Amino acid sequence: MTKPLNVGMIGYGFMAKAHSNAYAQVNHFFDLSHRPVLKAICARSADNAKVFADRWGYESVETDWRKLIGRKDIDLVDICVPNNLHAEIATAAAQAGKMILCEKPLAMNGPEGLKMVEAVEKAGVPNMVWYNYRRIPAVTLARRIIEDGKLGRVFHYRAKFLQDWTISPDVPQGGTATWRLAVEQAGSGVTGDLLAHCIDTALWLNGPLDTVNTMTETFIKERKHNLTGKVEKVGIDDACTFMGRFANGSLATFESTRYARGHKALYTLEVNGEHASIAWDLHDLHRLQYFDHRDEGRLRGWRSIHVTDHGGGHPYMDKWWVPGLQIGYEATFVHQLADFFTGLKESKPAMPDFRDAYQTQLVLDAVLQSAKDQKWVNVAKG
Amino acid sequence: MTKPLNVGMIGYGFMAKAHSNAYAQVNHFFDLSHRPVLKAICARSADNAKVFADRWGYESVETDWRKLIGRKDIDLVDICVPNNLHAEIATAAAQAGKMILCEKPLAMNGPEGLKMVEAVEKAGVPNMVWYNYRRIPAVTLARRIIEDGKLGRVFHYRAKFLQDWTISPDVPQGGTATWRLAVEQAGSGVTGDLLAHCIDTALWLNGPLDTVNTMTETFIKERKHNLTGKVEKVGIDDACTFMGRFANGSLATFESTRYARGHKALYTLEVNGEHASIAWDLHDLHRLQYFDHRDEGRLRGWRSIHVTDHGGGHPYMDKWWVPGLQIGYEATFVHQLADFFTGLKESKPAMPDFRDAYQTQLVLDAVLQSAKDQKWVNVAKG
Amino acid sequence: MTKPLNVGMIGYGFMAKAHSNAYAQVNHFFDLSHRPVLKAICARSADNAKVFADRWGYESVETDWRKLIGRKDIDLVDICVPNNLHAEIATAAAQAGKMILCEKPLAMNGPEGLKMVEAVEKAGVPNMVWYNYRRIPAVTLARRIIEDGKLGRVFHYRAKFLQDWTISPDVPQGGTATWRLAVEQAGSGVTGDLLAHCIDTALWLNGPLDTVNTMTETFIKERKHNLTGKVEKVGIDDACTFMGRFANGSLATFESTRYARGHKALYTLEVNGEHASIAWDLHDLHRLQYFDHRDEGRLRGWRSIHVTDHGGGHPYMDKWWVPGLQIGYEATFVHQLADFFTGLKESKPAMPDFRDAYQTQLVLDAVLQSAKDQKWVNVAKG
Amino acid sequence: MTKPLNVGMIGYGFMAKAHSNAYAQVNHFFDLSHRPVLKAICARSADNAKVFADRWGYESVETDWRKLIGRKDIDLVDICVPNNLHAEIATAAAQAGKMILCEKPLAMNGPEGLKMVEAVEKAGVPNMVWYNYRRIPAVTLARRIIEDGKLGRVFHYRAKFLQDWTISPDVPQGGTATWRLAVEQAGSGVTGDLLAHCIDTALWLNGPLDTVNTMTETFIKERKHNLTGKVEKVGIDDACTFMGRFANGSLATFESTRYARGHKALYTLEVNGEHASIAWDLHDLHRLQYFDHRDEGRLRGWRSIHVTDHGGGHPYMDKWWVPGLQIGYEATFVHQLADFFTGLKESKPAMPDFRDAYQTQLVLDAVLQSAKDQKWVNVAKG
Repeated sequence: MTKPLNVGMIGYGFMAKAHSNAYAQVNHFFDLSHRPVLKAICARSADNAKVFADRWGYESVETDWRKLIGRKDIDLVDICVPNNLHAEIATAAAQAGKMILCEKPLAMNGPEGLKMVEAVEKAGVPNMVWYNYRRIPAVTLARRIIEDGKLGRVFHYRAKFLQDWTISPDVPQGGTATWRLAVEQAGSGVTGDLLAHCIDTALWLNGPLDTVNTMTETFIKERKHNLTGKVEKVGIDDACTFMGRFANGSLATFESTRYARGHKALYTLEVNGEHASIAWDLHDLHRLQYFDHRDEGRLRGWRSIHVTDHGGGHPYMDKWWVPGLQIGYEATFVHQLADFFTGLKESKPAMPDFRDAYQTQLVLDAVLQSAKDQKWVNVAKG
Repeated sequence: MTKPLNVGMIGYGFMAKAHSNAYAQVNHFFDLSHRPVLKAICARSADNAKVFADRWGYESVETDWRKLIGRKDIDLVDICVPNNLHAEIATAAAQAGKMILCEKPLAMNGPEGLKMVEAVEKAGVPNMVWYNYRRIPAVTLARRIIEDGKLGRVFHYRAKFLQDWTISPDVPQGGTATWRLAVEQAGSGVTGDLLAHCIDTALWLNGPLDTVNTMTETFIKERKHNLTGKVEKVGIDDACTFMGRFANGSLATFESTRYARGHKALYTLEVNGEHASIAWDLHDLHRLQYFDHRDEGRLRGWRSIHVTDHGGGHPYMDKWWVPGLQIGYEATFVHQLADFFTGLKESKPAMPDFRDAYQTQLVLDAVLQSAKDQKWVNVAKG
Repeated sequence: MTKPLNVGMIGYGFMAKAHSNAYAQVNHFFDLSHRPVLKAICARSADNAKVFADRWGYESVETDWRKLIGRKDIDLVDICVPNNLHAEIATAAAQAGKMILCEKPLAMNGPEGLKMVEAVEKAGVPNMVWYNYRRIPAVTLARRIIEDGKLGRVFHYRAKFLQDWTISPDVPQGGTATWRLAVEQAGSGVTGDLLAHCIDTALWLNGPLDTVNTMTETFIKERKHNLTGKVEKVGIDDACTFMGRFANGSLATFESTRYARGHKALYTLEVNGEHASIAWDLHDLHRLQYFDHRDEGRLRGWRSIHVTDHGGGHPYMDKWWVPGLQIGYEATFVHQLADFFTGLKESKPAMPDFRDAYQTQLVLDAVLQSAKDQKWVNVAKG
Repeated sequence: MTKPLNVGMIGYGFMAKAHSNAYAQVNHFFDLSHRPVLKAICARSADNAKVFADRWGYESVETDWRKLIGRKDIDLVDICVPNNLHAEIATAAAQAGKMILCEKPLAMNGPEGLKMVEAVEKAGVPNMVWYNYRRIPAVTLARRIIEDGKLGRVFHYRAKFLQDWTISPDVPQGGTATWRLAVEQAGSGVTGDLLAHCIDTALWLNGPLDTVNTMTETFIKERKHNLTGKVEKVGIDDACTFMGRFANGSLATFESTRYARGHKALYTLEVNGEHASIAWDLHDLHRLQYFDHRDEGRLRGWRSIHVTDHGGGHPYMDKWWVPGLQIGYEATFVHQLADFFTGLKESKPAMPDFRDAYQTQLVLDAVLQSAKDQKWVNVAKG
């Protein structure tokens, strides 16, 4: 028998949709001890909340997140609102004894993140941050390859996240759809939005980053602000590149931008080890590239692994279709939720929890500090 | 308000899973006039039916498909059983006045298919065959490009469907999981299973096929039969290649096999026109390759279109995520179901209905006849 | 010390250029027992011959190929003229005791080819046909992989050669530059031009073809003839597809056309074996695709082998640059010439000699006969 | 009539081979006013010189480069020796009134490079540096696309040059074959060797770099020295990454390493503009990737341009074969030499001459200085 777990969703945007899909789908594909029940959705506008509830089957709506958190029939709170609201909601939810699933990045900055970590740890509530890309089967496979020691000593880790959706100066900042361009809501631009993903994966695959050196740029200096209605200075970074050194001695090169014409969501990563290398990109998320120098010399080549072969041992794929048939972006949230439930059952929390995600926050802080100070900055120890 | 439509599913295997997912998901992503209600699932074993019902939320189970068809509370019957059972069930369901969604191929052969067509047309019930690959956004886009006349006169249409899952002689034939290898259940091997898909898409994109010339092979002549427990002669075709001529004057080259090591489900198609060409493959189903000779000479090249950009007009993609994020195999069934509901609402049946799918059956008959007679065979007019 | 070998070239077109480059380059890169000396070039027009001689360093010119063949100072005759002239020249050259390097295809048809074989064998002169694609390092590597038994039982061999240069009806037929479109000069269209390459490689990699079944088409029925100045019926095949069976039990699918928009010289081949598969295409000639099912399950993938690593054992590449740097199309002729010289030295003729190339001629005859008779045709035994 | 130009080659290694090939081939493919005559080759060992001379047809050998420079019958000196010898030889050759073709990088550092610039300019001798990658047809095409303004405002320029040949600690440093690992001969490691290429191309395609910020690493700290026979500290950089800003406001990210397992010579570049982007990599040097946002929305995609279509206007390709057939690495030197001769004829020097290549030297100096000082460094104005 599966145990019902009552979910209260805060937010109704893109991520709320992705998470709701995970709640709807997880028990269709995974055999789990828990079963989410969509109890309530909260949005400032009751109309927006109602439309979302109808679509996804939430039983009720709220317009005040404090009220949702206060409800006795809510077991788990899912935070899908702009970054500047994470801390207050999460802290309150922890105090109310709710499990918390928080959209990434955890917080606006490290100190804020630390308070959130302390809140959930003090309350002893299960918690997780939605760094969903760890659960792409190809990325999980990369992790297993690395854990198995196939790479040997690592020399290089590089990641990029390239988009092109803000090249037009007509894109506004602020408000509902474009809060990612408003610094007061997002905290930063591509750094917290895109590099946060790259850093989370990197720490997971390659361990801690010690030191970073950053360059940022804001290509379009002023944009109309949707909340004030005025043309205002843009406070976010449009592009962010940083170099760095990992604790294991390997070199880091990271880049993100929203001004790379032709790329919609091109998150790529590559790890070069002594014996083998791996590479992956989000635009063909079901493929992993793998090169093994130990292969017979004349037959060495980058292998394009179509990560859909559960018989071959590809992570998560036994839950889906048959070899050769790929799954979509949304499956990553299903996987993460399944792992969260398994973590609950086995009392081994699924990662990244708040504390784990806090490490990414510390790197982000160092990255932004370096951009400001124009010099190398050490990453604080979490 | 959406109108509930009570679904009765017959079968509990791979395709029943794929269709059930479509019923579960369609209203999450599409705004429709109808809403499926999962009323009953039918399997010979009540236990199997129960497990499936629990997972997908079917309200009741049946073990006799005639009983399911006889239920007043069922509006729509979905047929997900081996090919040899399609005709009897579909005919009965039509007589009972049910809407019918039938897994492909429609029938064991043309004459059987024709009876099914006549049954649904006589009964006047909405009907559709699950040739889901038409609803891959990249394939739908290919159709629109062709409809818009971008290719000019077509010279070549080629398709392949390559798999490698039956290379081992230890794979048995017959019964539940491996009925596709038993001729009495499947009717044919790769021809009805894989080439049926290729032909359906081809007729949709390039019009009628006039004449074909086929070569088939059964590489492994005997396999253990799961129903009889004995090693028996294999009656299916392991591989099937055919050449042909379309009514529009273009040449056809088709190939399918389950003995192409390294390919899991590599359905590829390419159309070469006077002005432009298109190509696609299922292993990267979210990409369409397009070459346009009218591009500036030095800048001509095959364009790899990442068909995820709803702003750019990519079919169906406005319902899903954001540009750059791909969807999975299962989305094709969601799309087809959405189109079926839209067809109901607008009284313009979504294709392929039984009559449309019957055309594919006539081509399959000609293909198999040619293999038997070792000569060119004309495709019968449907 | 290298031994000088006096070359007499007949022809001054595209292939004469490619072969002359091989004579110029072979001793720069290979350590050989022989050294070609460019003694004479023959063209009907003395002016054309002179221009060509100046460019490539031929010491003299001739305008009558019989005179060239009669010269005592010529050791080796290279035939680079349209197909209809091969037999007469080669037979005369053999009778004159010259070594002969003949451009492919060997002859207009099998019987003509047989006479050429008999002439060189009777005369005992070294001879070779320029099926240069065997000497692409990636293709040679494919052969070695197959020889080493890595594929196991072979199920499928497929090859295509796609071009798009004759789509315009304004391309004329006949004469110097466009003799390939005139049946009286070329013998056939894409069959003898493009499929000849595909067949040569196939016989080399996969052994004899037993039986074939062909479809051909001439899309543009009339073209201006450059020799007569009139619009005349086109006698060649614009496209040719055939199915077949190899002696080893594997199935053949071959296609060639000059009407595949977007492809300039896309010769592709793929071989599917029980344990492994290989694939290659001419547009990226320095890469070989290799899939090995014996790789660890989760790490299986098509390997893209950059065939430039002489340290890894890639054929011929130790003669060129450093790993990672690719060579061009013209290198294939250099390799074949080097092998020819090595064959002379070691008295082990480099293949394909006339007799070996005659096998391809027999397949071509069967392919064309099948197209004519619209039925399966057995390949004659050579 | 072509004018003979007597060449004196200094060096007999990899680059001397590449340049000699250019001298041998240039008049076979290009119609030019000059024709190189291979007059003399100089190496310290007469035996080595003799072997090289025999292979490439040099008429004489020298063992003292001063003697070669002093010869009246030498018009042009080609410098193919380790970097630390460039300045002295080039300065002497200039004083002797010789034309000079110097292998890249120009010098050990900027000041040394400036002296060389001043020497050739004072002497008024034609001069050029072999930054051959500008003459890859795909790269030249990229330049033309940019010159035509297709990209609009440029936001990003990124380049990488990844190799893996020094991962083994057994690779020695110093001496003939491995001088690139010895700092006293090479000046730097990957910076002067690999990034020099990337920077040269970048300045050519995107204009001046203003400021840089670098990270370098030496992964293997000690290696056997071939000249001293002892294990000695490694003075070169094994990897070098830098960020920077171009004068046009775009951001630079550059990386090079010899520790990227799986990459032999993976020089990649990408430029992202407001309207269009281009990308290229050396492992498939005959392809250019191009994305144009002005294409019809649903048909936008990265175009893989096979840069072999002279009819389409691909640079240099009218000199070689037919569309679809690629050329090799060595063709770049042939092109550069042809351009040099054309420059002589038209009195418009082919670039990069010494002064142009000096700009790259200034960037290299800034890059290395930044690595040393661990901070942003401005590039000196040349």
